[in-house]
Amino acid sequence: MSDHEPVSVLGLGAMGTALAEALLAAGHPTTVWNRTGAKADPLLAKGANGANTPADAIIANRLVVVCLLDYDSVRQVLAPHTDVLAGRTLINLTNGTPGQAEEMAEWAADHGADYLDGGIMAVPPMIATPAAFLLYSGPSGAFESSRPVLDVFGESIYLGNAPGLAALHDLALLSGMYGMIIGTLQAFALVRAAGVPTTEFAPLLSRWLGNMSGWPAAAAEQIDKGDYGSGVVSNLAMQAAAYPNFATAAEELGISFELLAPLESLMRRRVADGHGHEDLTGVIELLEK
Amino acid sequence: MSDHEPVSVLGLGAMGTALAEALLAAGHPTTVWNRTGAKADPLLAKGANGANTPADAIIANRLVVVCLLDYDSVRQVLAPHTDVLAGRTLINLTNGTPGQAEEMAEWAADHGADYLDGGIMAVPPMIATPAAFLLYSGPSGAFESSRPVLDVFGESIYLGNAPGLAALHDLALLSGMYGMIIGTLQAFALVRAAGVPTTEFAPLLSRWLGNMSGWPAAAAEQIDKGDYGSGVVSNLAMQAAAYPNFATAAEELGISFELLAPLESLMRRRVADGHGHEDLTGVIELLEK
Repeated sequence: MSDHEPVSVLGLGAMGTALAEALLAAGHPTTVWNRTGAKADPLLAKGANGANTPADAIIANRLVVVCLLDYDSVRQVLAPHTDVLAGRTLINLTNGTPGQAEEMAEWAADHGADYLDGGIMAVPPMIATPAAFLLYSGPSGAFESSRPVLDVFGESIYLGNAPGLAALHDLALLSGMYGMIIGTLQAFALVRAAGVPTTEFAPLLSRWLGNMSGWPAAAAEQIDKGDYGSGVVSNLAMQAAAYPNFATAAEELGISFELLAPLESLMRRRVADGHGHEDLTGVIELLEK
Repeated sequence: MSDHEPVSVLGLGAMGTALAEALLAAGHPTTVWNRTGAKADPLLAKGANGANTPADAIIANRLVVVCLLDYDSVRQVLAPHTDVLAGRTLINLTNGTPGQAEEMAEWAADHGADYLDGGIMAVPPMIATPAAFLLYSGPSGAFESSRPVLDVFGESIYLGNAPGLAALHDLALLSGMYGMIIGTLQAFALVRAAGVPTTEFAPLLSRWLGNMSGWPAAAAEQIDKGDYGSGVVSNLAMQAAAYPNFATAAEELGISFELLAPLESLMRRRVADGHGHEDLTGVIELLEK
């Protein structure tokens, strides 16, 4: 293995293209394939080798990075070429679920390929910048031997042997992000309905969310202990009692309350179950069916 | 007015008590009243004056801070004592909605009182620490003349003359916080269902949310312009296509998807309306009925 191991990239959407560009920029000979060939042209102009079929790309190199729309696409692209997979290391950076990653790992093993599953915690323009980190799970040997290549994309975080761990952490982090987006959109809708520009309000929101940034760590302590506190600061019953103000204000201002409504239901159920004296954190038990 | 203007505090729940304690600690002669008198005892031991009725507390001082359960409680407590309100400045720090604040401001004006509405962006232990900030709206003269007292509680942020502005911003900031809580609880439920301790996962989540902390400011720019971008980085259609992974993973792991489901509906509707090529931000239009 040279300092610049050659790599194949299957899938040249915005993310696959960013990955291939990063590999080329870092000096890795890169072979690319995409279902619609024209997407490869800008990469070929930058020195990539074009493959006419997925099989050609797989045969070309030991390391094969796969970044397609979804796991169904991965199966469709790879299935006709199982005869050339043996001895390759598939690095699947396609969005999916833990269960899909586990199935894919078994499938790859059946055809003699090493399999790493990955989750990219970045948008394409962040690839190969210090802001990008990527999550990996699968055999540690496959991770270590691929690492010089993986580190080109961003910081590589190895989560363990179980193939589903990267997808699990990816989806969990994105859940956290979408929660932040949900809260921000609801906040913006409120102030905008009252004629306050969101750009005027946003700095206050950022400051407030910064003040609250210790919440996940504190909540995690409670959750791991299964001890949801004594609610001395602001217990669940008090929060549940104030929460209808959101619905009332939404009504007053003519905006929808749908994004925050499910948490209200959970809070009410948890209070009804006799946990009003605890902190809010305990509502997590109601998510576990 | 001396350097330490005397103040009355109506309502000695956890927050009212923290406010009265802060006033006493700062050297303000403080008169307190609570429906159940025993709650005043620890404050009397610290030098507060006890009032037997709300009227006694109102008569005692020009500045009257009110911190009760809700606006109905405020009306019930003050209504029998409208004859002593003239010339007082009511500072209402009770949780409520913009509409409730507007009504209360009119009611106070009808009885000759100045009225400031406030929102406390802190839990009781944070009062009088640098982490606390409080939002105020109402006549600027009333704010300025009360400011030496208000600044005892935390940083005072004046939002303008319209009485509903403090409640509006308060609810909007709390909406942002509850969104963060929604995302964190969903993320924790996911990893916990797969056997990953939430304390192990929380640092990664904090890092990721930190990476995403510029989202509100960037989204606000788009929203104020009414230009939801061209989605070159990650457009709404792509995000909507990947979002079902949350429901699938929740199903695989046996947890509820209810907290993130409403955003999926909005994203799908927005894509169906022909906005899939834009950024996610445009879904805010669907919140505006």
